[in-house]
Amino acid sequence: MSGPPALLSFHRYRQPRSGGRAKHRGEVMTQHLRAELDDVELEQLDAWWRANNYLTIGQIYLQANPLLRRPLEAGDIKPRLLGHWGTSPGLSFIYAHLSRLIKQTGQRAIYLAGPGHGGPALVAAGYLEGTYSEIYPAVSQDEAGLLRLFRQFSAPGGIPSHVSVTTPGSIHEGGELGYVLVHAFGSVMDNPELLTVAVVGDGEAETGPLEGSWKGISFINPARDGAVLPILHLNGAKIAGPTVLGRKDPAEVRSLLEGHGYDVLEVEGGDLPGMHHRFAAVLAEAYDKIGAIQAAARGGDWDGTRPRWPLIVLRSPKGWTGPEEVDGIQVTGTWRSHQVPLSAVKDNPEHLRLLEEWLRSYRPEELFDANGAPTRVIRDLAPAGDLRMSASPHANGGLLTQDLAIPDFRKYAVDVPEPGTERAESTRRLGELMRDIYRDNPDRFRLFCPDETNSNRLGAVFEVSDRAFMEPVTDADVAIGRDGRVMEVLSEHNCHGWLEGYNLTGRHGMFATYEAFAMVSASQTVQHGKWLQESRRLPWRAPVPSLNVLLTSTAWRNDHNGFSHQGPGLIQVVLTQRGDVARVYLPPDANCLLSVADHCLRSRNYINLIVIDKQPQLQWLSMDAAVEHCTRGAGIWEWAGTDDGTMDPDIVLACAGDVVTMETVAAAQILRERLPKFRVRVVNVVDLMTLPRRKDHPHGMSETQFTELFTDRVDVVFAFHGYPGAVHQLVHGRPDADRFRVRGFIEEGTTTTPFDMTVRNRVSRYHLVMDAINNAKRLPPGATELKAWCERKLAEHETYVVEHLEDMPEVRDWSLAS
Amino acid sequence: MSGPPALLSFHRYRQPRSGGRAKHRGEVMTQHLRAELDDVELEQLDAWWRANNYLTIGQIYLQANPLLRRPLEAGDIKPRLLGHWGTSPGLSFIYAHLSRLIKQTGQRAIYLAGPGHGGPALVAAGYLEGTYSEIYPAVSQDEAGLLRLFRQFSAPGGIPSHVSVTTPGSIHEGGELGYVLVHAFGSVMDNPELLTVAVVGDGEAETGPLEGSWKGISFINPARDGAVLPILHLNGAKIAGPTVLGRKDPAEVRSLLEGHGYDVLEVEGGDLPGMHHRFAAVLAEAYDKIGAIQAAARGGDWDGTRPRWPLIVLRSPKGWTGPEEVDGIQVTGTWRSHQVPLSAVKDNPEHLRLLEEWLRSYRPEELFDANGAPTRVIRDLAPAGDLRMSASPHANGGLLTQDLAIPDFRKYAVDVPEPGTERAESTRRLGELMRDIYRDNPDRFRLFCPDETNSNRLGAVFEVSDRAFMEPVTDADVAIGRDGRVMEVLSEHNCHGWLEGYNLTGRHGMFATYEAFAMVSASQTVQHGKWLQESRRLPWRAPVPSLNVLLTSTAWRNDHNGFSHQGPGLIQVVLTQRGDVARVYLPPDANCLLSVADHCLRSRNYINLIVIDKQPQLQWLSMDAAVEHCTRGAGIWEWAGTDDGTMDPDIVLACAGDVVTMETVAAAQILRERLPKFRVRVVNVVDLMTLPRRKDHPHGMSETQFTELFTDRVDVVFAFHGYPGAVHQLVHGRPDADRFRVRGFIEEGTTTTPFDMTVRNRVSRYHLVMDAINNAKRLPPGATELKAWCERKLAEHETYVVEHLEDMPEVRDWSLAS
Repeated sequence: MSGPPALLSFHRYRQPRSGGRAKHRGEVMTQHLRAELDDVELEQLDAWWRANNYLTIGQIYLQANPLLRRPLEAGDIKPRLLGHWGTSPGLSFIYAHLSRLIKQTGQRAIYLAGPGHGGPALVAAGYLEGTYSEIYPAVSQDEAGLLRLFRQFSAPGGIPSHVSVTTPGSIHEGGELGYVLVHAFGSVMDNPELLTVAVVGDGEAETGPLEGSWKGISFINPARDGAVLPILHLNGAKIAGPTVLGRKDPAEVRSLLEGHGYDVLEVEGGDLPGMHHRFAAVLAEAYDKIGAIQAAARGGDWDGTRPRWPLIVLRSPKGWTGPEEVDGIQVTGTWRSHQVPLSAVKDNPEHLRLLEEWLRSYRPEELFDANGAPTRVIRDLAPAGDLRMSASPHANGGLLTQDLAIPDFRKYAVDVPEPGTERAESTRRLGELMRDIYRDNPDRFRLFCPDETNSNRLGAVFEVSDRAFMEPVTDADVAIGRDGRVMEVLSEHNCHGWLEGYNLTGRHGMFATYEAFAMVSASQTVQHGKWLQESRRLPWRAPVPSLNVLLTSTAWRNDHNGFSHQGPGLIQVVLTQRGDVARVYLPPDANCLLSVADHCLRSRNYINLIVIDKQPQLQWLSMDAAVEHCTRGAGIWEWAGTDDGTMDPDIVLACAGDVVTMETVAAAQILRERLPKFRVRVVNVVDLMTLPRRKDHPHGMSETQFTELFTDRVDVVFAFHGYPGAVHQLVHGRPDADRFRVRGFIEEGTTTTPFDMTVRNRVSRYHLVMDAINNAKRLPPGATELKAWCERKLAEHETYVVEHLEDMPEVRDWSLAS
Repeated sequence: MSGPPALLSFHRYRQPRSGGRAKHRGEVMTQHLRAELDDVELEQLDAWWRANNYLTIGQIYLQANPLLRRPLEAGDIKPRLLGHWGTSPGLSFIYAHLSRLIKQTGQRAIYLAGPGHGGPALVAAGYLEGTYSEIYPAVSQDEAGLLRLFRQFSAPGGIPSHVSVTTPGSIHEGGELGYVLVHAFGSVMDNPELLTVAVVGDGEAETGPLEGSWKGISFINPARDGAVLPILHLNGAKIAGPTVLGRKDPAEVRSLLEGHGYDVLEVEGGDLPGMHHRFAAVLAEAYDKIGAIQAAARGGDWDGTRPRWPLIVLRSPKGWTGPEEVDGIQVTGTWRSHQVPLSAVKDNPEHLRLLEEWLRSYRPEELFDANGAPTRVIRDLAPAGDLRMSASPHANGGLLTQDLAIPDFRKYAVDVPEPGTERAESTRRLGELMRDIYRDNPDRFRLFCPDETNSNRLGAVFEVSDRAFMEPVTDADVAIGRDGRVMEVLSEHNCHGWLEGYNLTGRHGMFATYEAFAMVSASQTVQHGKWLQESRRLPWRAPVPSLNVLLTSTAWRNDHNGFSHQGPGLIQVVLTQRGDVARVYLPPDANCLLSVADHCLRSRNYINLIVIDKQPQLQWLSMDAAVEHCTRGAGIWEWAGTDDGTMDPDIVLACAGDVVTMETVAAAQILRERLPKFRVRVVNVVDLMTLPRRKDHPHGMSETQFTELFTDRVDVVFAFHGYPGAVHQLVHGRPDADRFRVRGFIEEGTTTTPFDMTVRNRVSRYHLVMDAINNAKRLPPGATELKAWCERKLAEHETYVVEHLEDMPEVRDWSLAS
């Protein structure tokens, strides 16, 4: 049973080996699930569920005696009792019934466990389906494998307590609550064959991101997209108390979900086998409704209104089938069953006895054969091959990933005969590239944007795709409707999470958002980064398209909106992620942006953060020069400085970020014109991750390259787009890192004009000139006078902007054009 | 009309000078609002609203000719047209009616504008009420003041385009959408006299945090708390397209809000004066319902079930009263009116003509007198004194702030006769302190915690207060009910936002949460920090209690939960805030925690981040030593090292954070015992902000102090709780900063045991010993052997934990006890 090596094993799934009748892309679903269970099915469901519960408890408690072949002893119990029982039986109950559904219908489905702390139940499911042993041969389907399964759980070198990257069939960790529906909706976009079942716990249902995600159906097209079946699992309690939805009047819960647009089906109880019969019937009803919706939409029999998709509310006891009472106190059905219902089992003989009784209540001798493998009746519940939810390639999206067809990005270039002479809206060129990517990839690329596609100058995409919207549209609406594939919703959480779901099922995209408000979904960025980091360690997890985040409307042009709209904090957040995942790009102009975007859209398994403003801005590099510059990640702009390369310059002016690059070039021009003997080197950094040492990040420059750019002793005046601390942290360990004088965004909050913004943040050309003079080792005559001139310019500016409400023309219209 | 100086002016509000019959705390509300408008009232409302709309447009467009005393010319138009018209007329319409309500009833009310980009309307309201000129005398109620009002908007040195800190009457900026209801609910907790009206825009209503906040009523007690009246303002569009709630079937919107538990009242239309009459009637109905709910609850006539609080759905045209069409395209009622409906007015004579027509449609000559002051009919709409919403002390909560009664924290001390010999759960002592703070401050202190109060060992508070919950409770529930004042909801957004609302209205609290999931509300931390930074610049804004954030369940003890539960990222986020606001504390034990907490709870206007784990941990300092240590913020622990202070040590072992402090002390012990001639200095840092230079943070140590601790040349092995980059960034500019070798949290994600966690992250005692040897300038004999010994210990550990599933006893039970 040990199976082939992991990687090979999973690669088999590229070829469907379905036992049921697998559906093809976009095929109308016509098969039904029988609403009634026959005796064989009931026996199968019951046995599978008992086995799953047994394995769940085994993972939490046992380090020996996995099949209870002898009486349970204190030594069989793990020294640390970890894990969560409460939600697990509900999760596996649903899983069993879905397996029956798949086997009967051939439906392709994946399972997302919102309460991801029910990890042992999902691990047990993959194990019972055989997938686990195929991927991890050491966790074999025999007694030795069972023991390993139990011992690895929440243990050193083992697996975490949550449904995790290591769990086959998962694209959702479920540790940070709130994202199960956004991941689910993202997974079914452009996946007409897929049914994603998303279990929402009533704890998770209290979070903002989850409450904001029910409305996903207002953006799902039944003809082109697959279906999400949400199952709101109300067991009434979270870790230490009741939940709002668990305690609310059920009529209110129904009203709430109907208000979101769902057709609400309810099942309630803890009685057996009654619950099996009732849940089977409700699941069949839900599946029929989905089938009818899709058949109508795909068959042309659809009036275009948003369907009322089914949703199941399942009310079952927390800790279902666990010990009713412990020490005379009710446990099952209360928050007390949330984690480990029987504590201190090693030292408490009564608890040990209760645990044994509990384990034996599932009759393990009926569930596992003499070798310890699941019996035939259990194995038979599982669908075949990659129809098993734990083996679905949709949950290992790299297996299904097809390269994007990307037109040659050079076609969209801005013509730049001379640096710094023409202005253009850089993101507009990216919009044109994305328009053609949309055109050429009708099933594998989407743009996600909180209501800002046009504002971000990416509107060219609307030439080939509307925005998706399933609510009524009017004649006054532009580029919006049910056939749209550009995703706009005023929720960073939805946009970000949809893209994650889309990425993890193997498709490509970009999340374009306001720089300051990218912090709203910062925790999603972090959690996705962690997922990617872990997945890189698992050879069976095929690489998925990178999560591309484009930040526009940056701090430097949010002069008028004020402090809430100014914040480059996401750079700082991405820097906390590991080097094998985190990428930060600050293209200074359109051609660099195109080159960077092309690279990011082709990449896998990264978080690519791209920061550039949307306003008209000076263009610096021809396309050829841009490609070379971006390939190196950082370089000397000789045309901007007075440094002939034959000796150390007097100062290095470095910059990363569009607006501060302009100020740096302008500062260099002032120095060139007014202190011609002063040797100034201008270095521009596109790829921020070239700054750290290579041992700290794979993009890090070699020390030789670093010294070629920055020398090993000349002071560096560094104008940075983000918070200055980021650069200090990145150059740590570089030769004499303390010589880096960083100017960047500081929390000033003032309302200003664009150039005034750089003045208030003290990154204006005049500040940089003064910095250069103050930090240079050698000063030519005239330096003191130039500093005084800069001070005068700043005073002149101050008076002017307050009087005229705009920047002085010499600054506003500044360029390198002679 | 220029009024007294700003500070004096506002301090008057400490003494109520109400014109209507102001209510007293907790008094049962009995007055009613008349549902019908008489002619005088209608004239007043209409005039006030016209004036507000006129001033709103003036702020967006005009830099001269504020009263249109002559025909409008291109030169009167601002060079940059900024601001948002679309939502503004709706916001001011509501404001006018609320002013009437206050004047009739004497109700204390504040107004929170969810669509904060309707800033000009709220600024205009404060101006018409006279408050603006009282605070900012230069913006006087005459033509010169009007001109200043117009020119300052979104201009250099002026005010931002949003309802901001500078806007009198605001505790909500509204730039980052999603928080209007959480702020509102926080504001009314323990404020029985207060009515907070929260306008929710239909754009904002799409965000997760907002959708997650409707359920605030499940936690509001009508007897003790005030009331929130949400007004869902559906004008159908956001910046570039329709909204989900704006387009949904109104029956679904009603169902959704009824599902949240509200009594939904609807008003729809754009007809005038019809809308005035209908809105007045609905507002009267809502106010009556609130009055009835509160009267019943406060009069004892309440069955204890959650009231169905009223909520108003207002459907009015976007850009109401603005230009219907521009260039033949419909503008009013569409997304096109979102920002500046008439563009390029300077250069387009037709647009200029339309603008003049639009401005004159409000008949400014009827609204302002010969001096430019609002006429009597307009001034008369405003309530008197601090009943004006723009002058409410509740929206300048520092004016109402009373000190907390805090028992002597030394009473809760852990007895520590010798360092590192006893273990205790540090947060449990804090819980006992908070219990007594609850007891002694029944109206001004609350703890906010996402379902983790007990788990965080803060459960002592339940001895004096239950958790608040207005949904049904059962016999199995513990410490929960309608009389509770501990706030638990599984939503960081709600907890954080409620506390902000509570703080900004002058009360004290603490938000205790999981360290990793603090990133969920990181953007709220950032935005609140920005608010506090800006408010410090305004003398009329009285300081408010600090936002205290306690992070427990830290990365270092989330070995078993896996990667999603490990993340010290919030430290990095707080470091981006300005030094006058940001505070980060890493108390290493219970007594330090008590000292730090006492300081934080007494402070004002800060964000205090406190990080400490909840598990049993070794205790280091007696209370006296802890107080001294925390007062200094960092110090040498002489008892831990072998440094006699007479000369430079061979190495400095520094640490910040509880778990890494234990490892550091253990490493020093190994060195002490095995290399007795090696001079080791141990430095512990409690206040992270002592590390930067004083010019970078007011807590920064002087260079002398810094050198006394860290020398100016000896290498420092720094064991840090968070990501290493934070320390590099903090010590930038310190003498030879590159000598700091920082070990901290790295993204490893492995499932481990507690000590194994420090091994995987390479911050274990063995790693620190090897680091000390590798970086010391002088090594005694035996160093090489000691390194080899460390390697052996690590290998031994590796084998042991995989076999035994727990740490080796010598590490698990390690202490300094002999």
